[in-house]
Amino acid sequence: MNLAPITDRLHEELPLTRAIGMEVSAWDGQTVTLTAPLKPNLNHTETAFGGSIACMGILAAYALLYLLFQEREISARVVIQKSTTDYLRPIDTDIISTARLPESEKIDEFLTTLRQKRRARLTLDSQLFSGKIVAATHSGTFVAILY
Amino acid sequence: MNLAPITDRLHEELPLTRAIGMEVSAWDGQTVTLTAPLKPNLNHTETAFGGSIACMGILAAYALLYLLFQEREISARVVIQKSTTDYLRPIDTDIISTARLPESEKIDEFLTTLRQKRRARLTLDSQLFSGKIVAATHSGTFVAILY
Repeated sequence: MNLAPITDRLHEELPLTRAIGMEVSAWDGQTVTLTAPLKPNLNHTETAFGGSIACMGILAAYALLYLLFQEREISARVVIQKSTTDYLRPIDTDIISTARLPESEKIDEFLTTLRQKRRARLTLDSQLFSGKIVAATHSGTFVAILY
Repeated sequence: MNLAPITDRLHEELPLTRAIGMEVSAWDGQTVTLTAPLKPNLNHTETAFGGSIACMGILAAYALLYLLFQEREISARVVIQKSTTDYLRPIDTDIISTARLPESEKIDEFLTTLRQKRRARLTLDSQLFSGKIVAATHSGTFVAILY
């Protein structure tokens, strides 16, 4: 699957993702991976800025919802209700952010509610890596609204 | 007080703050105010991107610690441990983010621990405004380390 159009779409929707240097780099049908170079996201200690890490956590979850809706041809707007980032250790490499679809029962429930009530809420977790080590975790609660 | 040097310092330390358009716009000795234009922080619904809002919440708290340490001539490095943003309503104006010093007993305790143990933890709340309305709240836990 060519992911460049999804990166382009996110860059158009969210111009700050260009400044972050975010790219959608992998999608296996379950887990989406986003990457961003360290340089534009540096902080004063030469590791990644906490704000950039929070953004990349949000963006992996948002990309996952985008892919979920695209595959099912669902037209929905997504808004964020809550974002929590736990910083475990510094990131001194590219920022790698992954988000994985929840178990299928949870997705089915979410999509059924979305069809019936035209809006539904879902919490998605992201993992942020420094190299191969989990350096931060993100939990995001999103509301999807059919249009 | 001329706040431009503090804005410049944050731009140097955290290059992404330039892309966000963040400026330190007011400091009355208790509350610091940061602003960012909506345009570079837009999302797909023509309101502010949740990631930019989280960044501005973190940055107000970070600027507050910077000012606190500068006034007391304390040399400390600050790292973030946890960031939580609750999104209450969309922001369709410039993003305004404020953080206020906690009560003096809490600051004294934080600074005493910092002197004694060379590191201390503090949780700071930020408010994010759309015009004059609180549109999001941020809670950040930071660790300061003397150097």
